[in-house]
Amino acid sequence: MTRRAIVLLSGGLDSTTAAAAAQAQGYSLLALTIDYNQRHRRELAAAADVARTLEVARHVVLPVDLRAFGGSALTDEIAVPKGRSDHAMAAEIPVTYVPARNTVFLSLALAWAEAAQAQAIFIGVNALDYSGYPDCRPDFIAAFEAMARLATKAGVGGDWSLTVETPLIALSKAQIVRLGVDLGVDFGRTWSCYDPTPDGLHCGQCDSCLLRRRGFQEAGVPDPTAYA
Amino acid sequence: MTRRAIVLLSGGLDSTTAAAAAQAQGYSLLALTIDYNQRHRRELAAAADVARTLEVARHVVLPVDLRAFGGSALTDEIAVPKGRSDHAMAAEIPVTYVPARNTVFLSLALAWAEAAQAQAIFIGVNALDYSGYPDCRPDFIAAFEAMARLATKAGVGGDWSLTVETPLIALSKAQIVRLGVDLGVDFGRTWSCYDPTPDGLHCGQCDSCLLRRRGFQEAGVPDPTAYA
Repeated sequence: MTRRAIVLLSGGLDSTTAAAAAQAQGYSLLALTIDYNQRHRRELAAAADVARTLEVARHVVLPVDLRAFGGSALTDEIAVPKGRSDHAMAAEIPVTYVPARNTVFLSLALAWAEAAQAQAIFIGVNALDYSGYPDCRPDFIAAFEAMARLATKAGVGGDWSLTVETPLIALSKAQIVRLGVDLGVDFGRTWSCYDPTPDGLHCGQCDSCLLRRRGFQEAGVPDPTAYA
Repeated sequence: MTRRAIVLLSGGLDSTTAAAAAQAQGYSLLALTIDYNQRHRRELAAAADVARTLEVARHVVLPVDLRAFGGSALTDEIAVPKGRSDHAMAAEIPVTYVPARNTVFLSLALAWAEAAQAQAIFIGVNALDYSGYPDCRPDFIAAFEAMARLATKAGVGGDWSLTVETPLIALSKAQIVRLGVDLGVDFGRTWSCYDPTPDGLHCGQCDSCLLRRRGFQEAGVPDPTAYA
């Protein structure tokens, strides 16, 4: 029987590459995109486009309005920081951090994984060029996986089990770009920018754009992105 | 400063008692109810009624459509089991189990807790009369709490910290009823039934009704519930 994986697909460069990696490992893909009422709604269209291109078995876009809780520049009317230095990115958790976002996303993936008896969850977190978010670290992923075993039928003697796969966790952005190229990812369909221009371009200056742009440069791969 | 707690409030007997316990401990309450597209939607009205009665600081009802994933009699068109014996309840996980529900609920509570800098999450899980769900056990709660520390700013040296409080975890249903009475809970406002009758009564025969009914009986407390 084909193994199934839930892939958390934001429509960004990382999650798209993680999805392609899952597919290359032979998994049939169930793609999960969370519409958390993010201000950069353009990424939802990218996720749908990527899901179509990868011909996933099913794509669910689930509305979960994290704006109800506030606390982030990605959901509230707080300015997205621009042109931050590497030092600034490494030194502090930015206002673009969404409280517990990856925990919420992984929990929803877990709910689908248990219902569909999927063997794995793929998430494109990355501990190197990770913009300082606590929920992108290997320690967090390991703790989530341990919790997930106890949370589900697997933890009370069921014969289903699950792993959380993070194929990008130890890669630099340039390595992710190269991996994506090897896997045939069409990066022109992906979206990274936290603060798109009114005419739908990547701003080129938010943390996510800065990391993306440099990733292509350092990988020596032509960047298909239209920056402002 | 008043300590704040996120309380997961379904509108049932357990979560209402847990909320009252949090209030008795001096917490200001932020009540979170998840509309997961459950078939027994009557409990959402109970949650709103309880939140009003407790005069919580804020009540958020967040739609998260777990029906998108399927796998439970509480969200799908699967019959809710009736009249199960204690032996049957203890022997297997029932079809009313919703995959990873408490993980999803706690994760959303965590998101709000971090955004609001709340010191605690209260959840009315119960490991004795727990209907066989894996995500009601102390091991699971401890694993969630450990994961939550790593998931948030607390895990990267922030000065905020959080505990997950389970005041009911070691109590029988009868003990929960007695605790609720001591705390002044108006159980007539709470809702337990998984399968309400068309005229809005508790069915009296699903696992949740059986546990509720016997809880009042064993506590020697008059049961205000209108059963079919």
